[in-house]
Amino acid sequence: MAITEDLAIYCQRVEQQLTQRLSHSSIQDTLQQAMRYSIFNGGKRVRPALVYLVNQSLTGDLNNADAAACAIEAVHSYSLVHDDLPAMDDDDLRRGQPTCHIKFDHATAILAGDALQCIAFEWLCEQNNDLAAGRQLKMLKTLTTASGDAGMVAGQAFDLAHVDKPLNLAQLEAMHEHKTGALLSAAVELGILSANCEVTPEQHAAYTGYASAIGLAFQVQDDILDITSDTQTLGKPQGSDLSLNKPTYPALLGLDGAKDKLAQLYQQALQATEILGPKAQPLRELAQYIVERNH
Amino acid sequence: MAITEDLAIYCQRVEQQLTQRLSHSSIQDTLQQAMRYSIFNGGKRVRPALVYLVNQSLTGDLNNADAAACAIEAVHSYSLVHDDLPAMDDDDLRRGQPTCHIKFDHATAILAGDALQCIAFEWLCEQNNDLAAGRQLKMLKTLTTASGDAGMVAGQAFDLAHVDKPLNLAQLEAMHEHKTGALLSAAVELGILSANCEVTPEQHAAYTGYASAIGLAFQVQDDILDITSDTQTLGKPQGSDLSLNKPTYPALLGLDGAKDKLAQLYQQALQATEILGPKAQPLRELAQYIVERNH
Repeated sequence: MAITEDLAIYCQRVEQQLTQRLSHSSIQDTLQQAMRYSIFNGGKRVRPALVYLVNQSLTGDLNNADAAACAIEAVHSYSLVHDDLPAMDDDDLRRGQPTCHIKFDHATAILAGDALQCIAFEWLCEQNNDLAAGRQLKMLKTLTTASGDAGMVAGQAFDLAHVDKPLNLAQLEAMHEHKTGALLSAAVELGILSANCEVTPEQHAAYTGYASAIGLAFQVQDDILDITSDTQTLGKPQGSDLSLNKPTYPALLGLDGAKDKLAQLYQQALQATEILGPKAQPLRELAQYIVERNH
Repeated sequence: MAITEDLAIYCQRVEQQLTQRLSHSSIQDTLQQAMRYSIFNGGKRVRPALVYLVNQSLTGDLNNADAAACAIEAVHSYSLVHDDLPAMDDDDLRRGQPTCHIKFDHATAILAGDALQCIAFEWLCEQNNDLAAGRQLKMLKTLTTASGDAGMVAGQAFDLAHVDKPLNLAQLEAMHEHKTGALLSAAVELGILSANCEVTPEQHAAYTGYASAIGLAFQVQDDILDITSDTQTLGKPQGSDLSLNKPTYPALLGLDGAKDKLAQLYQQALQATEILGPKAQPLRELAQYIVERNH
């Protein structure tokens, strides 16, 4: 599928951009090391790729998307560093590597996360001769709104507050819309803004509809993989997570119901992008990639 | 002194502004409660006051300084919430009240700090019909640069990395310039930008010189108060902290040396502001207030 090549190209591009932006020295080198360690951890760079793909679907200049692609990945990285802390999810490993607070220490992980969030917004202030300051300000507004107490952080707080408590479908969806959906929608919005053109309300609605469909699809497929990967690796029967009272789509809908939901969301993503024409084909392929991925 | 009345007025103003900006509801109310609890903790609001005072010294419109005053206080508050965490300074009390992670829990304190940092930058994106977008972008750049891994967070990391290690005077000064000086300088810069006028390079240098003098003076007086307040409250002899190998100005310069340093910095602040004329009189009074305060 052409999209896997696109993803590889954009992954490489954002990593080069991040390397350049994180090469400065500081009064405290350990802090910078921890920031670099956390952001260069083999992530799939889905959010930056989404920024670039949307930019290209509007025939934008990729150079104008670089700061936004780096910024959204820095926000994502900081959220993982803080999520992994003992007071939060208490994870020692991420992608098979020691998490930041294990590799360094707890204080350094807190500060590296803080600095990664801050630098994300700093990057969006970078001098850009193509983009009007008002547009850059809109990009900042987009990312701050998606990241904070009305978006990602609220979703994380909601998640932690409902450990071991049952959620209904509306609550589960609201949680994911905040925790992961807000940042994926921001990626799409940043892609539009970086393309430096006007979009019609209809086009904008198409992108928004696409973003919310793939945001939720991403999560439903995550939940499905949790079960099917258990089956392979632990030999547990499919659906054994249902008894854990963990709020997942299969727990609420059954595995077949979750698969139906995933198929619906994929169709929603395709329908939403119809009016965007052939330029949006990679976005449709990304939706397919998200629902078909096996890791 | 007239400055104490000014400080009271600006303290009240920024608290009203913060109350308005933090009144929204969320999917997760505990998070918002923790944010409000942390920012409404009886702080002196020195940074917002500095934004307002500098704005007024340039005959600015206070309304254009409100977002910046709120933003810089939110950054300051978030840094205190994270500083107090067990992995950092492990403080249970701040201003006689339980710290955020004691009042709520560790995870909530991490997330409330994260959200306070984020919302600070969101406030600087607020629609403002007076300020050009380019100027708002400069304000964002000022605050992000001061807060992150080249400023405040670097200073905190440096401080934590040197617990129980001796620092020389240059290192101590570099630490404070990052840890507290960067944000105080940002307050002055935000005051200038919010005044929405052009300043000459000479005026700008005057403000910058003033900012770095009072930033350091603030810290030197803190160190002196640590000792003199010990004498009153604990009955320890003056200068007993010297033996703790704690990096302070009295430890490196002796108590008299530290007092000389404080007097020099005060003179520096006065000299720097000479060219700013009578409009800058409150800034001089603020410098006097900082070096003479007893708490």
